Amino acid sequence: MIETPYLLYLGSTSDPLSIKTSRGIAMFRPDDCVGEFVHEENSLTLGLPQMGFSQAVQAGAKTLILGVASAGGALTEELIADAEAALNAGLDVASGLHSRLRDIPRLAEAATRNGRRLIDVRDPTMKLKVGTGASRQGLRLLTVGTDCSVGKMVTTLCIEQAMQARGYLADFRATGQTGIMIAGSGVPVDAVIADFISGSIEQLAPERSDGGWDLIEGQGSLFHPSFAGVSTGLLHGAQPSAIVICHEPTRKHMRGLPHFPMPSLERTIAANLEQARLTSPDVVAVGVAVNTSMLAEKEARDMCDKIAETTGLPCVDPYVHGADLIIDRIEKCFAISPPFTPLST
Amino acid sequence: MIETPYLLYLGSTSDPLSIKTSRGIAMFRPDDCVGEFVHEENSLTLGLPQMGFSQAVQAGAKTLILGVASAGGALTEELIADAEAALNAGLDVASGLHSRLRDIPRLAEAATRNGRRLIDVRDPTMKLKVGTGASRQGLRLLTVGTDCSVGKMVTTLCIEQAMQARGYLADFRATGQTGIMIAGSGVPVDAVIADFISGSIEQLAPERSDGGWDLIEGQGSLFHPSFAGVSTGLLHGAQPSAIVICHEPTRKHMRGLPHFPMPSLERTIAANLEQARLTSPDVVAVGVAVNTSMLAEKEARDMCDKIAETTGLPCVDPYVHGADLIIDRIEKCFAISPPFTPLST
Repeated sequence: MIETPYLLYLGSTSDPLSIKTSRGIAMFRPDDCVGEFVHEENSLTLGLPQMGFSQAVQAGAKTLILGVASAGGALTEELIADAEAALNAGLDVASGLHSRLRDIPRLAEAATRNGRRLIDVRDPTMKLKVGTGASRQGLRLLTVGTDCSVGKMVTTLCIEQAMQARGYLADFRATGQTGIMIAGSGVPVDAVIADFISGSIEQLAPERSDGGWDLIEGQGSLFHPSFAGVSTGLLHGAQPSAIVICHEPTRKHMRGLPHFPMPSLERTIAANLEQARLTSPDVVAVGVAVNTSMLAEKEARDMCDKIAETTGLPCVDPYVHGADLIIDRIEKCFAISPPFTPLST
Repeated sequence: MIETPYLLYLGSTSDPLSIKTSRGIAMFRPDDCVGEFVHEENSLTLGLPQMGFSQAVQAGAKTLILGVASAGGALTEELIADAEAALNAGLDVASGLHSRLRDIPRLAEAATRNGRRLIDVRDPTMKLKVGTGASRQGLRLLTVGTDCSVGKMVTTLCIEQAMQARGYLADFRATGQTGIMIAGSGVPVDAVIADFISGSIEQLAPERSDGGWDLIEGQGSLFHPSFAGVSTGLLHGAQPSAIVICHEPTRKHMRGLPHFPMPSLERTIAANLEQARLTSPDVVAVGVAVNTSMLAEKEARDMCDKIAETTGLPCVDPYVHGADLIIDRIEKCFAISPPFTPLST
């Protein structure tokens, strides 16, 4: 769908959270990334070679990934100018922003002129249906969170890796722009029409009878006043057998909203289980995933131990410690064991 | 926006709930309705003169209101054929369905050919923003419900009438297709992009300092697995000072979902208050509105008395009994009194 390899756009933003998409691709598809594009004043980096558009084309890049987020998903003047320059240099441009590239006449013209493609990942590609909540077969895990941008996608991908390493059938089901760019398909759930939120997730992870797991990427938080509707519909549509709660322990307030405090982990777990029971009465929590990127190693371990003790759930930073403790809990809760002996653990 | 008077479409549906839009307009704008259009096999009626399209044009009708609902909001072959015939007869056609009239080539052509308009009420007319949940001034009441189609719009309109009759500034804020057709403006909240659910309601009922009330039409139910995401975001965006809980006591299961039982009123009240507190910590419940259309008069009174006793809230069928008991409770809770002496009570 999107031609690789990629040049990842960081632009001039100074907010590390706003380059979530570019970072996610660099982390989980490093082989697809030839470099990163940054403006001079920008100190953020993903550790990739920094290059301009023409240089990237010479290095083999096919697509500029506009992997930055802005509140409301608007295209700024700077983003538009950079996208146009990339098209002129010979790159396709892919974006996950709400505002569509195709709606900007300058970009539509530049794409046509240069014979390049504009790819808006937030355009749902399937015909959506209203959800039914009807009970369906299959094992599904959903990541939920205390807030937006706390590591739900990364956690889901780490769980996929860990389950596959033990021989389970396990598939990442993407619901956000980065996830869709990584998985190659998915449902951009915050971009669907409101009536279809739960239905779109029922379509993303339909009935499954091969014993494998659908690992569904969560979005937002039941406690985020901007996006709780999306999180609620996603939870009902996912009909999860298991949930993993994601958390960023140094966050002082809800993302983007200084007037909103963070909910406690305990409250988040209880609220998600209660909401989930509407369509999945036997749902269980199987772990807490903590984003410890802002903590020292010892602090991170202590934090996880403390959370494990208070919640009674295995707690790890899956990107740092791996997700094995969570998989162990899943095996215990669902009385399953690896179909194949892992090569080494 | 939509030219009156109207011909109301009932078509051939046999489900009384599916003609909610046509019925709502007949109830709250009777002077704008010249008649109803039904197919022969249809026994449903709104008590209006039944007429064909040409006859309606002769009676002065300007617009056919496709006031019927179908799961998912699809346009059936029959609806399309009828809409085309109406255009050919010289009527505009207005629809609140998800599927847009303008997307049907036959209808777009017929409209052009006849010089008539196609009006899709579900196209949001304003530029939407992401919600912030920031505390805002003003008095707002939201109707919520145990299920979809239990009388939230009717209740909101009855409360508007009753408050205005006592001299309060009070404005119905529409969130659904019928409401928008009645109010002349509004936000079709189940048709907005998921990320903008709460934000669209913040825009519909912004800060207000004239002492007047915004009376916001609720949608869906926190317990309906198809639409709870919409209801959640609407509740957070409304930031209600007061909620009124709407209920249909003979409903056996959630609308359209025989596998889903109805929640109790007590659970519905508690869940809505808890969710609402995220953006409106001091929210109060001020009444229960029961749709008693399926009950005898005595049964209806007894039902309301019983609910009032168990919930501690005034309980009426506002369309039958009036909403005065609820307004009395609002005056008590908010320590307000009518700005003008009512002419007679």
